[in-house]
Amino acid sequence: MKDKSRYLRDLRKMIQDGEVDLRIIDTLNILNSKEDYYTTSSCAGRIILIELEEIGGKKSSNFIFKSHEKVDYKDIWKIIKEYTGAKMIFLIVNSSIIHVVCKDLESAKKLINISKESGFKYSSIFSLSDKIIVEIRSTEKMDIPLVKNGVVYPSEDYLVVMIDIANQLLERIKKKIEKLNENLRNIK
Amino acid sequence: MKDKSRYLRDLRKMIQDGEVDLRIIDTLNILNSKEDYYTTSSCAGRIILIELEEIGGKKSSNFIFKSHEKVDYKDIWKIIKEYTGAKMIFLIVNSSIIHVVCKDLESAKKLINISKESGFKYSSIFSLSDKIIVEIRSTEKMDIPLVKNGVVYPSEDYLVVMIDIANQLLERIKKKIEKLNENLRNIK
Repeated sequence: MKDKSRYLRDLRKMIQDGEVDLRIIDTLNILNSKEDYYTTSSCAGRIILIELEEIGGKKSSNFIFKSHEKVDYKDIWKIIKEYTGAKMIFLIVNSSIIHVVCKDLESAKKLINISKESGFKYSSIFSLSDKIIVEIRSTEKMDIPLVKNGVVYPSEDYLVVMIDIANQLLERIKKKIEKLNENLRNIK
Repeated sequence: MKDKSRYLRDLRKMIQDGEVDLRIIDTLNILNSKEDYYTTSSCAGRIILIELEEIGGKKSSNFIFKSHEKVDYKDIWKIIKEYTGAKMIFLIVNSSIIHVVCKDLESAKKLINISKESGFKYSSIFSLSDKIIVEIRSTEKMDIPLVKNGVVYPSEDYLVVMIDIANQLLERIKKKIEKLNENLRNIK
């Protein structure tokens, strides 16, 4: 675990600079307090708007809104109504993701099991090359095209429904994170 | 690889019964022809409509439409317009997924690398318990609520846009599968 101290230093700085989602700091601290683990990156789950040139063309994607907390549909409505660009805009809910370097395969297996039990069903070993990295990931997601060729497609009522669901997904993620924290604290 | 012959027998029967998506049969055959691998389940990628009681309540979810090929938006429009139930209906695009049992960690690592190079960016070790199982998975996805409380929210024009994007995603998946097949054939 030779790079652990460097990652912890970077994380402390990022927390000070407000660059880490508050909701997930506990999880990172619990993991980093364990001898067998350290975290390299994380997202607590979020609601975003991205601008896209073409389908799947992630190279040209551009964030125009990002929130780790519940959002008011009016904020989203205002952004898309005032949008004057020519790209597509997607409303996306991303589940929470944490990348964790593990000491060995045994500790990786243990972490995956705990994560799955806590509701993070998509947890898996993400990389095996240089380090063993587990990705803790949950299933909540939504991907909706809102604007294309300058046309705002959803009605205001429809956007209310979409944002209501997006907020419910964030709430589910929050509960899973609490469950995960509880289960991680019990690791020896 | 003691269960391989049983899985191959089951797969042959499923192919005969038309239960395996045509588009992915080549991939399964190539993998199963290699000494170090065998496949246990697969989906070529699909466009579906599901009925849901509540957000995230997968227990109560129910398929009402499923296609592994491009769809005509009119078919989807008809289904949602004629729907008389009280649940939510979501339009979902699932990326392709293949589960592959690997002989050892080395062969798993090799398969993950090939899969990622072929565009299946979410490929990872899915299980380590009893067997080493790699999940080959790509990133294409869409999740859109269409109907809630008996209200069909998208306009016909909006549905055209959604289905057009869904079809483009299926097309991208198809190309990735072809690339994957090419790269898998080169494994010794």
